[in-house]
Amino acid sequence: MSIMITGVGSFIPNLKRKNSDFLKHEFLNIDGSGFPHANEVTIEKFKAITGIEERRYLEEELTTSDMATVAAQKAIEDAGIDPETLDYIIVAHNYGDVKHGSVQSDAVPSLATRVKHNLRIKNPSCVGYDVLFGCPGWIEAVIQAQAFMRCGMAKKCLVIGAEALSRVVDKYDRDSMIFSDGAGATVLEVAEGDGGILAHQSATFAYQEAHHIYFGKSNRAEEKDDTRFIKMNGRKIYEFALTHVPTAMKTCLEKSGKTIDDVKKIFIHQANEKMDDAIVARFYKLHKRPVPPNVMPMSIQELGNSSVATVPTLLDLVRRGEIKDQKLSKGDVIILASVGAGMNINAVVYQY
Amino acid sequence: MSIMITGVGSFIPNLKRKNSDFLKHEFLNIDGSGFPHANEVTIEKFKAITGIEERRYLEEELTTSDMATVAAQKAIEDAGIDPETLDYIIVAHNYGDVKHGSVQSDAVPSLATRVKHNLRIKNPSCVGYDVLFGCPGWIEAVIQAQAFMRCGMAKKCLVIGAEALSRVVDKYDRDSMIFSDGAGATVLEVAEGDGGILAHQSATFAYQEAHHIYFGKSNRAEEKDDTRFIKMNGRKIYEFALTHVPTAMKTCLEKSGKTIDDVKKIFIHQANEKMDDAIVARFYKLHKRPVPPNVMPMSIQELGNSSVATVPTLLDLVRRGEIKDQKLSKGDVIILASVGAGMNINAVVYQY
Repeated sequence: MSIMITGVGSFIPNLKRKNSDFLKHEFLNIDGSGFPHANEVTIEKFKAITGIEERRYLEEELTTSDMATVAAQKAIEDAGIDPETLDYIIVAHNYGDVKHGSVQSDAVPSLATRVKHNLRIKNPSCVGYDVLFGCPGWIEAVIQAQAFMRCGMAKKCLVIGAEALSRVVDKYDRDSMIFSDGAGATVLEVAEGDGGILAHQSATFAYQEAHHIYFGKSNRAEEKDDTRFIKMNGRKIYEFALTHVPTAMKTCLEKSGKTIDDVKKIFIHQANEKMDDAIVARFYKLHKRPVPPNVMPMSIQELGNSSVATVPTLLDLVRRGEIKDQKLSKGDVIILASVGAGMNINAVVYQY
Repeated sequence: MSIMITGVGSFIPNLKRKNSDFLKHEFLNIDGSGFPHANEVTIEKFKAITGIEERRYLEEELTTSDMATVAAQKAIEDAGIDPETLDYIIVAHNYGDVKHGSVQSDAVPSLATRVKHNLRIKNPSCVGYDVLFGCPGWIEAVIQAQAFMRCGMAKKCLVIGAEALSRVVDKYDRDSMIFSDGAGATVLEVAEGDGGILAHQSATFAYQEAHHIYFGKSNRAEEKDDTRFIKMNGRKIYEFALTHVPTAMKTCLEKSGKTIDDVKKIFIHQANEKMDDAIVARFYKLHKRPVPPNVMPMSIQELGNSSVATVPTLLDLVRRGEIKDQKLSKGDVIILASVGAGMNINAVVYQY
């Protein structure tokens, strides 16, 4: 028995926001103080570290579950399955549906219910739930789906990651430039033969790291209310990720029975280009190998960090040949890996 | 192999709110119109249907994850396990942490991370995530934990249901009297021998029923902002539950290999006393049996509807002999069942 990804789809919002669109923003430090240089410099430094040149924002009339629905439709079409045969719809997110202009997260009913409703699926045995696990939520939902499939509870699962971070950013925070919106979805199916999901690894570091990513007040202390926004301690996250993500990937690879030389591609959460480069460099260093060229497809330059959506979206883009010099072939061993709020880390080794 | 509940704990908030505390509330219909009778009459009718005489509210300085932590601590002590040996912490909720006076849900980091942090658990292999599945979330998390245990991914899981509905009620809505706060937790472990979880059943009805429970505006149209609150269409929910919950319970019982005569207790989500009575009556009618006396322990009279927390809290109360004429003995076959936003339904047949 194998568990295969048989369909992939994504929704990339239409609204582009270039770095130059932030030139007139008032960026403040967390203590409310300003930066000692012009926004041109702030943005140039931002781009040098994160690699981000532009990002996508959801249209005003849409919410996260709308994006999830479109990505799901495409994945279902790609898999060529009857949606009524799905056993599970699992939606990973962290902020629910946040309407434009609202500060409230809405996940009642769950986003999985909304997607199922939007897809007009009638079968009540298709169970829909949401999982919250920070940015690694989509990979974690894949791991959960494979558990249901391995123990005979499911044969077909739709696993979606969708987030609209543009609805929860503090415009006075330089980090707001990192975040973006999007959705990615996959259909997973039980199949004959080898390949598919070979191994997985998950971890939650909550002892000292629980609040590296948090919901906090605006950097502009004069803001009239106590509305909170997505906030992060970038330096601590960077150090944390470099320490723990390469070892988690290594453990997962060892469990899979494959070797470092088998690995064709690494699909890593698009959090920050420099950080992702450093993680992959350390992963190869642990195996005493140089980093192979083109091993890590990246979309962050144009799409930013859309949380749970980055990995399935990237997978979709590579499958469709939309990332330069990146392609997947039958039999390729790939690693999916993520890190984010929790702090959570996970990885999956998958044979394509 | 069996999957046993080896520890149970709950947190029942200290603040009591009696029905009489609502006498001066301004209750309005969803169209903003008033009721044609005095609050005494509204409250008397409310009590006759729901059975609720009082409910518990969380203290101002606490949030849902604080309640979850206390319930978890008690369940861990009850199980007598080292918390560092837990493989999963799963927290079911629907609104995250909502601070007193805030309208924002906060689930970044996840409530599972917060609980793990509060419990001072260091082991990163203890994976914490949150599941959103309406009121049936705690039972669904139990079903997920058993899947991880059956396929060898886990041996010990902490499964928590926690919610503070007092933070999301519309005080102009009569239904606000239904809702309450609380947390219940269980430790599940893989064990030798028979018993434990015998069968489970889950369903999501999203085609026409998705928005029976939703996040909506205040019944008082003049309210200055567009803040939204928990809202429900009670009549539709009642009809839905009566149609689908008894059959889900019946299917689950059939899967378990046990018969209606084996069933000693039914722990049903404390949504509404009349509705719960009617569900159990119909369940027995489907089996052509009269409803046995004391088969359904109830806590709603004093604790109200605390969403995901009601079933584990009720289990804890019965185990500790705190519900009159209710006790559990080794070998007893029980049914856990729930219905709520989604609309989701689930059931577990468990041998104690």
